[in-house]
Amino acid sequence: MSEFLDKAAEKYHPGLSVDCVIFGFHENELKVLLLKMKHTSKWALPGGFVEKNEHIDLAAIRVLENRTGLKDIFLKQFYTFGDPDRHDHEMDLELFKQSGRDPVKDHWFLQRFITMGYYALIEFSKASPRPDDISDACEWKSVDELPDMILDHREIADKALDTLRFQINYQPIGHKLLPVKFTMPELQRLYETILGKELDRRNFQRKMLAYGILKDLGERRKGGAHKAPYLYSFDVKKYNAALKIGLKGSW
Amino acid sequence: MSEFLDKAAEKYHPGLSVDCVIFGFHENELKVLLLKMKHTSKWALPGGFVEKNEHIDLAAIRVLENRTGLKDIFLKQFYTFGDPDRHDHEMDLELFKQSGRDPVKDHWFLQRFITMGYYALIEFSKASPRPDDISDACEWKSVDELPDMILDHREIADKALDTLRFQINYQPIGHKLLPVKFTMPELQRLYETILGKELDRRNFQRKMLAYGILKDLGERRKGGAHKAPYLYSFDVKKYNAALKIGLKGSW
Repeated sequence: MSEFLDKAAEKYHPGLSVDCVIFGFHENELKVLLLKMKHTSKWALPGGFVEKNEHIDLAAIRVLENRTGLKDIFLKQFYTFGDPDRHDHEMDLELFKQSGRDPVKDHWFLQRFITMGYYALIEFSKASPRPDDISDACEWKSVDELPDMILDHREIADKALDTLRFQINYQPIGHKLLPVKFTMPELQRLYETILGKELDRRNFQRKMLAYGILKDLGERRKGGAHKAPYLYSFDVKKYNAALKIGLKGSW
Repeated sequence: MSEFLDKAAEKYHPGLSVDCVIFGFHENELKVLLLKMKHTSKWALPGGFVEKNEHIDLAAIRVLENRTGLKDIFLKQFYTFGDPDRHDHEMDLELFKQSGRDPVKDHWFLQRFITMGYYALIEFSKASPRPDDISDACEWKSVDELPDMILDHREIADKALDTLRFQINYQPIGHKLLPVKFTMPELQRLYETILGKELDRRNFQRKMLAYGILKDLGERRKGGAHKAPYLYSFDVKKYNAALKIGLKGSW
């Protein structure tokens, strides 16, 4: 931490950070990856600073890779948080003291910070969470039971979840979260998990098929009963097109 | 400009700006408010810097008010642009020289800037465009014929238009842009103008009514013929609810 404070002003863009809301989905559970901060009972979103000549998207990707070991994950910038009151001057002073030094007036680390929020949705069984220098644990926490969080991190997490829930109204979701072949009930449970509510089975199927992003594979789940549900896969070309222009139902 | 350069480092957050894409609608035309920069043939989006203790949203509102004279306009943050190559070092040096001084290494103004994009949609006949200190004209330009623009301002304008066009698929639009009482063809022309394409009359009416945000006033346009179209107004309560949770058609 002490070395970081010495070199920060030279290495990083001033007053700017990224925070990542990494949603994990696995077996009908939706979780968020959080760090337990040292010397406090509070938790934090994985975040970091932007190097002076680094693209902001790459800074977010760097944070995600460092905390999960995962590469090639789609991170989406969703909002920049810039309330001057989001800053917790006391906590910064405390970190300064822990590094064994006196706070310096106008130090890079003690100024106001704007943070850019990014979110990702991954299959959490594939990640290897690991804490950073200022945290002593890195764990998945259920979106329904988030612990006490530092600064405005709870607000950032909530806004990311709102964005994700809004997004599934107009963009497809599920590719890389479900197995390549999946059943309609499995797809429905993914939606229900993200939305946090139950959906009508027949409406779901009708609407989903109308989007035109599914391939009906014409086969049933292997080893299943005669009445086992049919298997589908995403038509990746149409899926990707819908990511760009939105699902049917647009003007 | 010279005084600005002296005081900037003290007054403003480092390496951070806002740029506003102000869309104007009037009589079936969609335009963007641009500034013609001094000493160049290029145009720019109205923008500015964020004061050290200022909320980023308020910085954007300040820019909008200064350029249009309009208050109480809904500005929406839509994206933060942080490619290190978006910076035009040559132009900055030129502005330095025009202010009659030599560029200082590591000067506040010469560092890399991240910019936060905001957009607004207003009735452009109500605005009073006025240039800022570094521009000599402030004019409405058609979205179909945007002039040559500085830095990545064309990309910012394009992304704002994409966002606006995407937004009208899931959020209502038109309040404060149309008269309080309007006809279905007038509402349709607003949508067609924003989308830049023609829509089917019957589909439009069916879909629009299904959203449940319109009040059928049961009267025809005054002075109109017997077959004059019926008048509607927005149900503001339902309109505002749909702004928050999205239009029907969500899961």
